[in-house]
Amino acid sequence: MDELLEASGPEHWRTPAPEDLLYMKLDAGRVVIELAPGFAPEHADNLRTLAREGYWDGLSIYRSHDNFVVQWGDPTEAQDARKPIGGARAQLPAEFARGGGELAFHPLADADGWAAEVGFVGGFPAARDPATGEAWLAHCYGMVGAGRDMAADSSNGTELYAVIGQSPRQLDRNITLVGRVLQGMELLSALPRGSGPLGFYEDPARRTPIRSVRLAAELPAAERIPLQVLRTDTALFDELVESRRNRGDEWYKRPAGHIDLCNVPLPVREADHPPAPEDAGDRASGSGGPEDDTVEAQRG
Amino acid sequence: MDELLEASGPEHWRTPAPEDLLYMKLDAGRVVIELAPGFAPEHADNLRTLAREGYWDGLSIYRSHDNFVVQWGDPTEAQDARKPIGGARAQLPAEFARGGGELAFHPLADADGWAAEVGFVGGFPAARDPATGEAWLAHCYGMVGAGRDMAADSSNGTELYAVIGQSPRQLDRNITLVGRVLQGMELLSALPRGSGPLGFYEDPARRTPIRSVRLAAELPAAERIPLQVLRTDTALFDELVESRRNRGDEWYKRPAGHIDLCNVPLPVREADHPPAPEDAGDRASGSGGPEDDTVEAQRG
Repeated sequence: MDELLEASGPEHWRTPAPEDLLYMKLDAGRVVIELAPGFAPEHADNLRTLAREGYWDGLSIYRSHDNFVVQWGDPTEAQDARKPIGGARAQLPAEFARGGGELAFHPLADADGWAAEVGFVGGFPAARDPATGEAWLAHCYGMVGAGRDMAADSSNGTELYAVIGQSPRQLDRNITLVGRVLQGMELLSALPRGSGPLGFYEDPARRTPIRSVRLAAELPAAERIPLQVLRTDTALFDELVESRRNRGDEWYKRPAGHIDLCNVPLPVREADHPPAPEDAGDRASGSGGPEDDTVEAQRG
Repeated sequence: MDELLEASGPEHWRTPAPEDLLYMKLDAGRVVIELAPGFAPEHADNLRTLAREGYWDGLSIYRSHDNFVVQWGDPTEAQDARKPIGGARAQLPAEFARGGGELAFHPLADADGWAAEVGFVGGFPAARDPATGEAWLAHCYGMVGAGRDMAADSSNGTELYAVIGQSPRQLDRNITLVGRVLQGMELLSALPRGSGPLGFYEDPARRTPIRSVRLAAELPAAERIPLQVLRTDTALFDELVESRRNRGDEWYKRPAGHIDLCNVPLPVREADHPPAPEDAGDRASGSGGPEDDTVEAQRG
């Protein structure tokens, strides 16, 4: 994989629009989330409004459920005691899937148990019903969604979650996914687990404060991080997938001959500081899959 | 799922043998690992020897690789400077799979991309080749394996790892799995990620000390934890799987009609303190799958 990334040219990378990037500032560092307006345009728009108006500033990550999700927003139970949402919309439609063929779908050849077809749309892991052309985002590690109540259309983007465990694909088409963590995933995935039911923190003092969430487009250019994401619709990407489907390195004794959608790495880099090959895996560790998946007996 | 667990009788649970349980003591708490001698008898035997002789006492967890594994043992690079392994064997055979039909295999009906057939053997997630009857353990969340070098038979159990991310099934039949974390998984999965390549800690001070690893059989009966694990070869277990494959609860708008091997929960309880139904999911959070997999917008 490192060799392929090293051989990549600018045409193999895309630069997410600043309107699609959220920077979440925690005391431990910054989490960068790329929105997926192609799948959830109304949620994306509401999230932009919420970020512009500083909705999440001073709120917290209040749930860390082992092998499932971390969740953030306003933990206040009483509806009328919650933080006002300003100019954001209180009600949005469910955006579980996109209709027939409107999105360019780059299929993965591998079988999937959850959907008739899986692949990638604009850099995001997705699934598709070939009969209808309907496509939807897939709950892989690092994906971000909008929590909801019982009604399908009860999410408005104020409460968000990120997947930190085995892909809970049963949530696909049951809840609106809004994007993916590009950077800082380890700041979410390594949070101490909540000891209450469903991973909620019983002691509010254990919540992680959110200092701010900003839309990159609102920041001066100098403060934006020049992130680039590997395109998922190129021959180089297909080669990368194949290199993971059938490992050529000596450590692997038996190539798998298969890869799961959620095991496909989706590398991210900073344009100003192209990673050295040695670093590439590590740089790309935001989400998407293990970067170096051998388990050597010791460091040497 | 809670209702099914509540309806379960003693016949639906098994009590792992004290000879198959390792207690790993960290400052933050205790991790309990069940060995799988049915699959890796020689590794299990070596692990028992290493535990009896206190091999891991004073060593550390020295790797935490986001969405992949944590790893522990002796991080010393120079072979001749490593901690002596006492009466344990320095060399073991690779135990990647078990031959034709010697293990009772309880199949899962669901398709799997990595193997022709998946299911459970004695409570562990596993896969099988129906043509040969060969069976092997699967790299699901919480599974524990023995790190190795380039040679297939270069693991001796001194360096262990636990899966903390999306199931890296490409490792199946490439490395020896030795067991599963039954309790305390969150003490491993929430460790800060290492900032060095492959998640190794660059600063040794960030490693997590291992105070001791003991075999339950070596402890006085009063110090043993009366853990029970749900059997995976009963009709009740099949019902539990079906309740997760096709959710009946109102929150889910579209039942998945499928479950992945690594999404099947494998509940664990303490016999002396049967969990209240409300707690059952949480108690069972050792590994195996999300316990309550809805993402409600807020706590209420």
